[in-house]
Amino acid sequence: MEYSSKLIENAVTEISRLPGIGKKTAMRLALYLLKQKESVSDDLAGAITALRKNIKYCSLCHNISDTEICSICNGKRRDKSLICVVEDIPDVLAIENTSQYNGLYHVLGGVISPIQGIGPDELKIDSLINRILNSHAEEKVKEVIMALPATMEGDTTSFYISRKLNEHQIKVSTIARGIPIGGELEFTDEVTLGRSILTRVKYSPD
Amino acid sequence: MEYSSKLIENAVTEISRLPGIGKKTAMRLALYLLKQKESVSDDLAGAITALRKNIKYCSLCHNISDTEICSICNGKRRDKSLICVVEDIPDVLAIENTSQYNGLYHVLGGVISPIQGIGPDELKIDSLINRILNSHAEEKVKEVIMALPATMEGDTTSFYISRKLNEHQIKVSTIARGIPIGGELEFTDEVTLGRSILTRVKYSPD
Repeated sequence: MEYSSKLIENAVTEISRLPGIGKKTAMRLALYLLKQKESVSDDLAGAITALRKNIKYCSLCHNISDTEICSICNGKRRDKSLICVVEDIPDVLAIENTSQYNGLYHVLGGVISPIQGIGPDELKIDSLINRILNSHAEEKVKEVIMALPATMEGDTTSFYISRKLNEHQIKVSTIARGIPIGGELEFTDEVTLGRSILTRVKYSPD
Repeated sequence: MEYSSKLIENAVTEISRLPGIGKKTAMRLALYLLKQKESVSDDLAGAITALRKNIKYCSLCHNISDTEICSICNGKRRDKSLICVVEDIPDVLAIENTSQYNGLYHVLGGVISPIQGIGPDELKIDSLINRILNSHAEEKVKEVIMALPATMEGDTTSFYISRKLNEHQIKVSTIARGIPIGGELEFTDEVTLGRSILTRVKYSPD
């Protein structure tokens, strides 16, 4: 494409570097910004710069945070004997949104994937073990919940971590897998359905 | 959603103000930026601010431009006796990309739409008439091509402008409408197909 302005060309190039945004969408976004007040662009640009420049990661759970220790790890009402291990930051948000969990988190920053060259050392696994071993008194970690993706990589990572934790007699659990709530049996894939029969649980209506 | 960081919350809010981008996509984009070098965010923020702050609109055709008169209006190889009237800036890009047109443009900034309260005075129609009347010598405008959307609003605008131009004996044409190249007759809507029969042209294979 040939643009009649270097400014728009530059903006389109930068915006289209974002994942999932092509040149046409970038152009649409740039033209949208042009039609808004100048403060809209300024606020957007400011928020992006500030985010990248000032963001911190919690030194305990590696979630994004504005402080050295994040608000969840520092939360007074949080059950500090529970740690939920997740792949990445959006997973923390997803679980928080359920309002069903009141423990702490640990963000691994990925899962073990030999194909992508990600081994245990690239992830925050040692940091998880140390964190658990260093916990004491009321904050002693009693259970670790694996909430990793239901893929081969996720399963491998869960297996690796659980073996490490078994050495230290920590209870390890994993989030339930089965047919989703509201799911029809006939539309559930065979693997999920098969596993949901094998891993059936005691019927307990609530 | 509750975020563990004000910085990310702020960035997500600002990014999700863009059209077609929801909170989830905004979060994905923000996390992507966090994983890139700081220069990626800085370049993006810089390009956005510079675009909105420094953009100019060509005083002749109202296309975006870095200069008072845009590169198309100033182009030495452009046929200045031809003006193509379009609704908005992306249309100029779309026509330029065909490499089939060598004249000038005129960006109306919209089309007449009583429902949206857009009348002729909100558009750059007077500016088009003045521009044509002020042209002279070799740059005298001889033909105006209406390249407006094939909607009722587009048709109304074309009609309004053509009537104005007829007063000044300027030739007015409109881009052809019919079945798209590669289009199958059975999948073409009835209105397009019906009009393409009524407005049939002499067969001239090239």
